[in-house]
Amino acid sequence: MAERTYAVRPVGVVSSPLTDRDQAPRQGDEGAPPAWLILNRRMKAAMGGLQVGAEVIVLTWLDRARRDVLVVHPRGEESRPLQGVFNTRSPDRPNPIGLHRVRITAIEGTRIAVANLEALDRTPVLDIKPLLGDVDER
Amino acid sequence: MAERTYAVRPVGVVSSPLTDRDQAPRQGDEGAPPAWLILNRRMKAAMGGLQVGAEVIVLTWLDRARRDVLVVHPRGEESRPLQGVFNTRSPDRPNPIGLHRVRITAIEGTRIAVANLEALDRTPVLDIKPLLGDVDER
Repeated sequence: MAERTYAVRPVGVVSSPLTDRDQAPRQGDEGAPPAWLILNRRMKAAMGGLQVGAEVIVLTWLDRARRDVLVVHPRGEESRPLQGVFNTRSPDRPNPIGLHRVRITAIEGTRIAVANLEALDRTPVLDIKPLLGDVDER
Repeated sequence: MAERTYAVRPVGVVSSPLTDRDQAPRQGDEGAPPAWLILNRRMKAAMGGLQVGAEVIVLTWLDRARRDVLVVHPRGEESRPLQGVFNTRSPDRPNPIGLHRVRITAIEGTRIAVANLEALDRTPVLDIKPLLGDVDER
């Protein structure tokens, strides 16, 4: 198996009041605060068509996660039996890419306000994809 | 804005009869053939809990995509107006990470058979995440 790697280049960064992993809700619906995606100004053209009110999937690089972890207790609860990380949403995993389904609440230049983003302040943003229903989630 | 990059390290590779981008269906439900995720044997523990029949989200690195493209004609149809790539599912985008919602049809060691994977043969696999419903897609 090829061992080559690929470089992800952040297109922006999260601005959020969440600064501590222990403080982050385990799932977005448990009350993540509003946050901003501060995109690089070079990404303005890539935003064409994004609209307030739309639901999108934000991909992040969970830069404070551990990449050497293969099994975890789900949601950090030690009473739960160990699971392979591919069967959990743990941020700790070989490639700590976060998927966040959020709604756009404002767009100001290359800054995008989103509701319910479960990501720590300064988390790198990798991508934004539209959510158009089940078909489009593939 | 920090310009640092991060290295993704594939955990496996796609084995699929799809070898040509023009041949790939634009969406999984348009008839992608069965495929295998051939994971690195070191990833065995990370698979703990994955089961046949489960729906999962597979993350891939779309290694034949262009990273310098910021606007595209959706679905490659020139009659459609140009859109920012963040408002499309185009593989061409700054960080060409593919999201694929698939169902596990077989598990043999560290090989996972999946239905309806829209990804070319030899595409690197980055991650597998469970799909447990709307809440868990965040």
